[in-house]
Amino acid sequence: MRSRISRAVIPRLSIYYRTLLLHKSSEVVSSGELSDLTGCTPAQIRKDLAYFGQFGTPGRGYIVSDLKKKILEILGIDKNWNVALVGVGNLGTALLSYKGFKEQGFNITAVFDNDLRKIGKRLEGITIQDINGLRRTVKNKEIQMAIVAVPAEEAQKIVTTLIKAKLRAILNFAPIRPQVPKSAELINIDLSIELEKLTHFLRQKV
Amino acid sequence: MRSRISRAVIPRLSIYYRTLLLHKSSEVVSSGELSDLTGCTPAQIRKDLAYFGQFGTPGRGYIVSDLKKKILEILGIDKNWNVALVGVGNLGTALLSYKGFKEQGFNITAVFDNDLRKIGKRLEGITIQDINGLRRTVKNKEIQMAIVAVPAEEAQKIVTTLIKAKLRAILNFAPIRPQVPKSAELINIDLSIELEKLTHFLRQKV
Repeated sequence: MRSRISRAVIPRLSIYYRTLLLHKSSEVVSSGELSDLTGCTPAQIRKDLAYFGQFGTPGRGYIVSDLKKKILEILGIDKNWNVALVGVGNLGTALLSYKGFKEQGFNITAVFDNDLRKIGKRLEGITIQDINGLRRTVKNKEIQMAIVAVPAEEAQKIVTTLIKAKLRAILNFAPIRPQVPKSAELINIDLSIELEKLTHFLRQKV
Repeated sequence: MRSRISRAVIPRLSIYYRTLLLHKSSEVVSSGELSDLTGCTPAQIRKDLAYFGQFGTPGRGYIVSDLKKKILEILGIDKNWNVALVGVGNLGTALLSYKGFKEQGFNITAVFDNDLRKIGKRLEGITIQDINGLRRTVKNKEIQMAIVAVPAEEAQKIVTTLIKAKLRAILNFAPIRPQVPKSAELINIDLSIELEKLTHFLRQKV
């Protein structure tokens, strides 16, 4: 059943889950209440949650604890994941210092760079390793995901290296869109692109 | 003409621009070359760039310097923007230390928090201010944009405060989707949601 959940649903499940974490006051929540809290329509919410099968009670709502558990499982955040960070420039360093990943079960357990001045130094308690040691470390530390925070011109090469090391889930912050085979999933987050959407908006207003 | 550029085009323009920055070797670039470098189809590229009017030469390509200048202007990054950061927890602190914003013309010139233990302290050379002083500072420092990095349960209140202080462009990192009036633009970046898309992908593979 899992594989039939559409990709578009996942971000909304994340939002429902976070809303449920804030919704501590009652044991049951209706699609109408979830709608007020999330801004999604009740119909959309009912449709999304119907993927899980029948576990809402029509006219009453969903049992909060069951719903949270089910969403956690679907999202794959009912366990911890080991993450490799590649690139400890400005952004990589900032991401490494961000405690939110760990709180959500994402542990950065290995850090890589290609700068000889950085390799061997410690950052946030982790020794920066040569990217050449990636494959061995991924295996030894059972790393399943990678965060890429290298300059644009190095991103494709690094992503290819990650894929060869059997990493199949990559979060890319480099301002370019690397290609991956169909067997892997790569998500791009480009902070500059988001800011540029805002400046374009402001520019139109002038 | 500007206002007729569709919002979907903006992220691609950002990508074209970054690709052009890397493409230093020649004065002219064809849609085919841009396609190889960006992964967008040549037809898509020609369509996107046609918004600017006729300045490509059929069969030859686009003049790189003209294209860069035009895209910069459309994106609104041909000038510097003053940005307020609200919330200096883990993520806010990480974002403040990230030098990439400044490199792209986004200057964080004011920092706000509601924690009395933080207010008055200095971080990255900027004194943390009480959120109550927001309106005056926005005016005095000519701030045009805001980055929100507060906990989910405070995000809507902060966003409403920002809108009242006449800030119209907001980048929100809180894991919730605050509502804004139509006169404002709010973009959500939820790092956890992106990671959860990856873990869902990995979970399906098991």
